[in-house]
Amino acid sequence: MKYSGPTIFELGESEALKRAVAVFKRGEHTLVGSGDDAAVIASAGKYVVTTDTMVEGRDFRNDFSSGYDLGYKAVASNVADVAAMGAKPTALVVAVVVTTSTTVAWLEHFAAGLQAGIDNLAPGAEIVGGDIARGTEIVIAVTAHGELSAEPVLRSGAQPGDVVALAGTLGRAACGLDLLLSPDETLAKAYDEWVEVQLRPNPPIALGQLAAGIATAMMDVSDGLSTDATRLAKASGVSIKLSSGSLSGYEAVLELAAQSMVARGFVASERDWVLHGGEDHSLLATFPAGAVLPRGFKVIGEVIAQAAHPLYLDSEPLVAKGWDSVSS
Amino acid sequence: MKYSGPTIFELGESEALKRAVAVFKRGEHTLVGSGDDAAVIASAGKYVVTTDTMVEGRDFRNDFSSGYDLGYKAVASNVADVAAMGAKPTALVVAVVVTTSTTVAWLEHFAAGLQAGIDNLAPGAEIVGGDIARGTEIVIAVTAHGELSAEPVLRSGAQPGDVVALAGTLGRAACGLDLLLSPDETLAKAYDEWVEVQLRPNPPIALGQLAAGIATAMMDVSDGLSTDATRLAKASGVSIKLSSGSLSGYEAVLELAAQSMVARGFVASERDWVLHGGEDHSLLATFPAGAVLPRGFKVIGEVIAQAAHPLYLDSEPLVAKGWDSVSS
Repeated sequence: MKYSGPTIFELGESEALKRAVAVFKRGEHTLVGSGDDAAVIASAGKYVVTTDTMVEGRDFRNDFSSGYDLGYKAVASNVADVAAMGAKPTALVVAVVVTTSTTVAWLEHFAAGLQAGIDNLAPGAEIVGGDIARGTEIVIAVTAHGELSAEPVLRSGAQPGDVVALAGTLGRAACGLDLLLSPDETLAKAYDEWVEVQLRPNPPIALGQLAAGIATAMMDVSDGLSTDATRLAKASGVSIKLSSGSLSGYEAVLELAAQSMVARGFVASERDWVLHGGEDHSLLATFPAGAVLPRGFKVIGEVIAQAAHPLYLDSEPLVAKGWDSVSS
Repeated sequence: MKYSGPTIFELGESEALKRAVAVFKRGEHTLVGSGDDAAVIASAGKYVVTTDTMVEGRDFRNDFSSGYDLGYKAVASNVADVAAMGAKPTALVVAVVVTTSTTVAWLEHFAAGLQAGIDNLAPGAEIVGGDIARGTEIVIAVTAHGELSAEPVLRSGAQPGDVVALAGTLGRAACGLDLLLSPDETLAKAYDEWVEVQLRPNPPIALGQLAAGIATAMMDVSDGLSTDATRLAKASGVSIKLSSGSLSGYEAVLELAAQSMVARGFVASERDWVLHGGEDHSLLATFPAGAVLPRGFKVIGEVIAQAAHPLYLDSEPLVAKGWDSVSS
């Protein structure tokens, strides 16, 4: 998307910030909103906090993502981490580095995307503060907060005998990225549903709160199932055995897109997307065998005692092939 | 400072992060520290949150600031905002963008500086989370949290008749920056005390908590006295009259440095540093006339009814000449 009009640099930080802040709606947990040295948030005893950063040219491309998309995705990826603790998102702060050519229109669209992300994924939460700085590439650093109504669900609580379950989708954001990266632009248009998951993911945030008090461990799948299931297994001192049969449904919906890419001469595999693709920000959790899973969680495997490998697909070791945000 | 050894890129994000995190000490308010999807922090009912960003080449230069300096300063500037609400710093998260040439040694030194900032300025607080991303310039985005034991002190509560008081120093960080920027390197060496304030400021954090419950308004002086006093006056719907006589002490200590610069042909003014220089991160507060000020606050002016200008020095209007982080 092309933006025109004055740059943030031309308008001045404080005026540009005012226009962005005007987009934000008041949250339910905010005692003092943006505009002072700090915001003040209500909390009933303990809160969760997490931070995540997106860098232009590496974590996103301005020719793929509009300002709106980036705002939405920044909220989604951060509130997914809040949800993965079993918490309800309450308040976010957003630090953004802009360039001398970044327009006020981009910033306003970015703010609208942030608010849309809040409206859809974290109703009642608020962007309570922010900071704009100038650099040579756009950087978006969001810190999200949430309120716990039960004990936090850690990565480290999985026990042999637990079932492994997933809420949300797998592989769609990775499929969408491959479609966008393909030189054949008709592909992204033909499968725009998966492109949209890449640009504006919709993790099942409320399910995190429903799993709290039942799940023994939980985390969000941001870097791919193989990478994140390995992390959960290692943190819990167990191994995880995924069942390929239970993953076939996730693969089936992406099969046509993969076939279309292969038919045009590109490398694509729905299985790779599902096993190794990140950014759907689904919730991966373990539950005691026999527990009633919150509706929306689907069993995809089981926890076994620590074995030679942290992760298996059926009886074969499954090696993590996900994303390292610096070295990948 | 020169760093050698492997880059973060060569070592991998997760291993590099592990080494940085190893430097951090456990805080008093942390229920779950770094390593999970989110940290969990204890709170007695409400907490404050603030964020601030530093960009290489704009907010700092790697030839002036070591990784240690940057970590220290990032903590100082953020906990000053926490203190300015009357709160006690409890927990920080740090997002850092590094380049392909940033070394692990730099990151470890940066982490040591963060911890030193905590030790000196915010004992009991902890770096509870972070994120490393890759870009083309270093960006440091910190979000700091604090606990309130009284109502938050806003910028908007100043009343005509209040006294205006300051805790901390004025102009030293600006003097230090001018010394660093001077082509004559002997100057920075001769007045290294002011250079150190620029590189590793020591705001009077504990005084913020002492002012809570007494002060009618408070903020930290990050962009210069003229700019920040103007902001406080506008937020409160009043005008502020600073007394030049009360500022002479702040100027006197910087007089020799200014004279040395002028003698070598550079432009320098201790009055400009004190009136317009930022980054000492002192606390500017207003108190009811007759209130007993916490020791460490010094009266520098008075609040008057809203007049033609928001800020006066004695009877002359004083125009804000501070820092706009995008347009300056």
